[in-house]
Amino acid sequence: MANTFGQLFRVTTWGESHGGGVGAVVDGCPPRVPLTEADIQPELDRRRPGQSAIVTPRQESDTVQILSGTFEGLTLGTPIALWVKNEDARPEAYAEMATKFRPSHADYTYHVKYGIRAWPGGGRSSARETVGRVAAGAIAKKLLRTRWGVEILACVLQVQDLCAAVDPDKVTLADIEANPVRCPDPAVAEQMIRLIEQRRAEGDSVGGIILGVARGVPPGWGEPVFDRLEADLAKAMLSLPASKGFDIGSGFAGVRLTGREHNDPFRNIGGRVRTVTNRSGGVQGGISNGETIYFRVAFKPVATIMHEQETVDVHFQNTTLKGRGRHDPCVLPRAVPMVEAMTALVLADHALRHHAQCE
Amino acid sequence: MANTFGQLFRVTTWGESHGGGVGAVVDGCPPRVPLTEADIQPELDRRRPGQSAIVTPRQESDTVQILSGTFEGLTLGTPIALWVKNEDARPEAYAEMATKFRPSHADYTYHVKYGIRAWPGGGRSSARETVGRVAAGAIAKKLLRTRWGVEILACVLQVQDLCAAVDPDKVTLADIEANPVRCPDPAVAEQMIRLIEQRRAEGDSVGGIILGVARGVPPGWGEPVFDRLEADLAKAMLSLPASKGFDIGSGFAGVRLTGREHNDPFRNIGGRVRTVTNRSGGVQGGISNGETIYFRVAFKPVATIMHEQETVDVHFQNTTLKGRGRHDPCVLPRAVPMVEAMTALVLADHALRHHAQCE
Amino acid sequence: MANTFGQLFRVTTWGESHGGGVGAVVDGCPPRVPLTEADIQPELDRRRPGQSAIVTPRQESDTVQILSGTFEGLTLGTPIALWVKNEDARPEAYAEMATKFRPSHADYTYHVKYGIRAWPGGGRSSARETVGRVAAGAIAKKLLRTRWGVEILACVLQVQDLCAAVDPDKVTLADIEANPVRCPDPAVAEQMIRLIEQRRAEGDSVGGIILGVARGVPPGWGEPVFDRLEADLAKAMLSLPASKGFDIGSGFAGVRLTGREHNDPFRNIGGRVRTVTNRSGGVQGGISNGETIYFRVAFKPVATIMHEQETVDVHFQNTTLKGRGRHDPCVLPRAVPMVEAMTALVLADHALRHHAQCE
Amino acid sequence: MANTFGQLFRVTTWGESHGGGVGAVVDGCPPRVPLTEADIQPELDRRRPGQSAIVTPRQESDTVQILSGTFEGLTLGTPIALWVKNEDARPEAYAEMATKFRPSHADYTYHVKYGIRAWPGGGRSSARETVGRVAAGAIAKKLLRTRWGVEILACVLQVQDLCAAVDPDKVTLADIEANPVRCPDPAVAEQMIRLIEQRRAEGDSVGGIILGVARGVPPGWGEPVFDRLEADLAKAMLSLPASKGFDIGSGFAGVRLTGREHNDPFRNIGGRVRTVTNRSGGVQGGISNGETIYFRVAFKPVATIMHEQETVDVHFQNTTLKGRGRHDPCVLPRAVPMVEAMTALVLADHALRHHAQCE
Repeated sequence: MANTFGQLFRVTTWGESHGGGVGAVVDGCPPRVPLTEADIQPELDRRRPGQSAIVTPRQESDTVQILSGTFEGLTLGTPIALWVKNEDARPEAYAEMATKFRPSHADYTYHVKYGIRAWPGGGRSSARETVGRVAAGAIAKKLLRTRWGVEILACVLQVQDLCAAVDPDKVTLADIEANPVRCPDPAVAEQMIRLIEQRRAEGDSVGGIILGVARGVPPGWGEPVFDRLEADLAKAMLSLPASKGFDIGSGFAGVRLTGREHNDPFRNIGGRVRTVTNRSGGVQGGISNGETIYFRVAFKPVATIMHEQETVDVHFQNTTLKGRGRHDPCVLPRAVPMVEAMTALVLADHALRHHAQCE
Repeated sequence: MANTFGQLFRVTTWGESHGGGVGAVVDGCPPRVPLTEADIQPELDRRRPGQSAIVTPRQESDTVQILSGTFEGLTLGTPIALWVKNEDARPEAYAEMATKFRPSHADYTYHVKYGIRAWPGGGRSSARETVGRVAAGAIAKKLLRTRWGVEILACVLQVQDLCAAVDPDKVTLADIEANPVRCPDPAVAEQMIRLIEQRRAEGDSVGGIILGVARGVPPGWGEPVFDRLEADLAKAMLSLPASKGFDIGSGFAGVRLTGREHNDPFRNIGGRVRTVTNRSGGVQGGISNGETIYFRVAFKPVATIMHEQETVDVHFQNTTLKGRGRHDPCVLPRAVPMVEAMTALVLADHALRHHAQCE
Repeated sequence: MANTFGQLFRVTTWGESHGGGVGAVVDGCPPRVPLTEADIQPELDRRRPGQSAIVTPRQESDTVQILSGTFEGLTLGTPIALWVKNEDARPEAYAEMATKFRPSHADYTYHVKYGIRAWPGGGRSSARETVGRVAAGAIAKKLLRTRWGVEILACVLQVQDLCAAVDPDKVTLADIEANPVRCPDPAVAEQMIRLIEQRRAEGDSVGGIILGVARGVPPGWGEPVFDRLEADLAKAMLSLPASKGFDIGSGFAGVRLTGREHNDPFRNIGGRVRTVTNRSGGVQGGISNGETIYFRVAFKPVATIMHEQETVDVHFQNTTLKGRGRHDPCVLPRAVPMVEAMTALVLADHALRHHAQCE
Repeated sequence: MANTFGQLFRVTTWGESHGGGVGAVVDGCPPRVPLTEADIQPELDRRRPGQSAIVTPRQESDTVQILSGTFEGLTLGTPIALWVKNEDARPEAYAEMATKFRPSHADYTYHVKYGIRAWPGGGRSSARETVGRVAAGAIAKKLLRTRWGVEILACVLQVQDLCAAVDPDKVTLADIEANPVRCPDPAVAEQMIRLIEQRRAEGDSVGGIILGVARGVPPGWGEPVFDRLEADLAKAMLSLPASKGFDIGSGFAGVRLTGREHNDPFRNIGGRVRTVTNRSGGVQGGISNGETIYFRVAFKPVATIMHEQETVDVHFQNTTLKGRGRHDPCVLPRAVPMVEAMTALVLADHALRHHAQCE
């Protein structure tokens, strides 16, 4: 099950950085959802490298093809196969990776686990794998929007020490896409861009925090015990490359409050049960309560840097390694559509699960 | 799958706060592992309320019975059914809960989701559900310890603003169990206990952070992409009642570093590949690298407080509700064995998964 | 997943012939289904040994307890734990089984697979395991009947060479329960009973065929490709102890026809699409078409006989073994409720799956 | 899960008769298995139409491409994506199918289930879907052969009333491939070919029985209860298009025997535990016992015939439909590699499952 996500809205991704391409199979999508490549391509374009000066210049068109599962522009209820060809294969750029393990990458652990490793571009551990997720997530997003009016957004909240102020109830896609760092706070965004450019000049890299938001989720989605909505969101986010943390609602900051300070009182507002505050982050007991779902995802600084680093080779001998070629000092803007995609996959799955048992 | 966890080492829990009891079925445990109730009961005793002045005085013996899956003290390879009777059923203590939703509890969301709710004691959403997890986790712990020498520990790291200093490589069970708050830093533990007693006196409650540790995990456990070791740990932790956040290794703090500061250099140390630092938290690319795995779990303050709070009733009319009877101002010490249990379930599952495909 | 059946309506069974009992956990049942022990006990009574002169006289009350998942007579949507105590434990009756493998039983294969074996009563391989299935199936039956009007029946169609004539569209529960062999053809039933009594007198045993029927299944249940309705029925039936074959509709006999003879023409009959004949057995392309679903299940003769047989012991040395004590020459009448239970589990699962994706 | 098969060796197929192609993703294959397209193509060639005068003349090269999961001729342990382009798309040949349901096909049930239907060529319900299974099965076969020495074969045993005599312990691939009907009994094969040619001349079609064989399976594979080896084989076979029945070992014929006649005595033969007879079909209690596994699969006559038949249209009005164009009177020779593929998928999965828990 390693490469499959979801119980009812199920996605299986495949593909290495170099080779025949990357893709996904989406199984369980309801029939008769309008769907063409035009619903998916814009999300891939947001994920694509080379969109701005602050991200990696890898040049690939990342053109998606739907190979199955639709007919005359509608989903069939059968598996939707998605394929994106690899174009920018340059194994020679990675020759040193054939014999040395990059620090804080997956080279060593893949080597130990499998006894074999597709070293060009990092193989399966490349962020290129997320192409399949973003493509599949675009389908989930469309389903959620058209069937339940759910809106999913993500944005950059923090880069190193630079923190933006973002209101999960009000942030818009236009605000987020207004600048290349995808931070809806324009003043902080400006500083973030300058910081990233500085780190690039230094051959170094940055990490940061992304905010994920889902608005319009009806109350009742999610499951008690193991498959709580926040548990599946946490898994989804920690499955993204370079992510190191997740919290929802008040999160880590909430531990400093007392119960009196933290509890969200219920009120009947306009005939609907609402919470006056939303420290719960839209989820209580693992189940959505109708308020905005919001959470944070921590990403470590990019591991590939333009400096000589200590490491070992495939014979486990000490050596050094220096990154060369393309340098992407900040993965955050490109991780924004990944966070949205994974959020959509979690919610689409839980929407169907709730429907199956309780509606 | 809502109530089942794991792919190969699979646990299904069942049971409500009031009723015939709580329990679990463990499917997939290898045969011939020595196992009796004596391996499980001590973990349940650690989880049990009423152990000290700072936790809830609910009085139940929580005696576990193994109903199947063992023969003459050894596992059979067949499902192990575990049962703990409910003894302290006092539905009358919860009468007001029948008609009102407790703020920041699961009463409202269960009501909306299922259209029915076992209100005595919170039913399935009660922390009593974790009895089954802790019992099942004890089996996973035994398997991990006897077969691979893996040691799993957890402890309280923070209560509100009080932070302890704990070294994941060195902390011992004896240090943790030395005081009722299960914080291995004795000076801070003393302060924590006083703070919890003060909150109890105020009818209020606290949250905090638990540190989880797994030592001796061989390199190679975990899966790329969706079922990364840290993703499954995140899900496991966010599935615990009242948890709001998870981070691993450098976590949220690591986002402030640059790549140069953050990367873990590899070195051959005594013939073994080691990392000089461990900001990765023992996992790289979703797969264990042989270093100590450590992570943090944030728990919000306990929702039940002895104060009148605004809420709505089952007819969605505004009203107020005041907690009565037993008051447990701090769930953290009892959550320690839950964190250990869920860690063990994740690792046992990944141990078998790694073995199945790669060994 | 060995001990779990179903994707959405999921059943996990546990328990050995001797020990704390046998049981099941049902996860995924919709909430608010009326359910008490009185819905389950009659099915267990039908499955129970000792009901008539032609089956094993093992004496146990097989009283079911619902330990969780219901509240005030309604399902909660949470796991339903079912438990039946073992009462008639007589390990001494099986002492020889501790050291010798019974021919055509599972003793040898369990020994080789697990390296350990609960020999009293056959442990997990005992037909006693089906108690959990029949109990869980009773819940599925109730759900199917109350929500979709689906009726599930099974009956004995053949014992050795004695074949009954049964019309799947018309057979009733009353016809089936009218005699101890559960064959609705009274004349043939009489012969079957005499044959079984004769085999018992000879210390020998019989096999036969059970007919399974599901009426009122709406068109649309089932999935293309791997989880076809007939594929899941086949798996369900071949998972029953002693079963050796399955066919649906025209089945093995249909291979002798040509396409012209075999095809089921469609007709609009009273505004509904019907097939004029039903050689398809109610399923086309893996999906129900609204006609009666009917299938046959072949059961080999009971392996335990009162004759000395050649076998090997646990040291793989040649020896002989003679069955003693209770002798059940024919499992078919007791297998009838098992076939019904497994049919119900398959259909309840597919009902929810269809609803999840397509409704 | 509808389009995924297996727990540890997992295959997901996708694709319609017309469109971007058909394919499969294989997840869970162990690393370092030698694998190139040359291991897969021969199986696809055996499955391909147009190989002989007795099967459909649809002309496609069915050339497989491995898009991911291998590196320098070895599996990586990551998902293996397989793709076969559709070449012979002729939607115009199916124009009448757009508005009418073919009798005993899946047109009507897909229409009712999904409310949409890819009518050209039958869409997902086309036998073309099995391309993905056969390709995936070739990988499973290679794994089974190279790692455990398991040999898998299938052959045609019966066409209408013509029955061949085949010994599961001795039949060879060369015998099977010696004639276009894939029946290793040359005299009967000759008669079968003449019968099929006659049915083609009549515009009619035939059904029959395929024998499946697995030799060299070590004792211990399979699971008790739901995932018995024979249960998973039954599901696998009943998931094939046009299959209507399955039996293993003595099967339906065995019900006529008594226990004395049917039981397989154990003997130590040359230091190994063997059964003297093999009515069990190589499986006891759901687990392989080391003897040859053999089973039969019944296939109904091909539904597409060159005769006018009664049916309804998409408005549920009575009408008639006559097959035109390509006519394949017998699917059996092409179903042989499908039976082998599904057998291999079941066994590879159970091999890994047994290894995971018990070795």
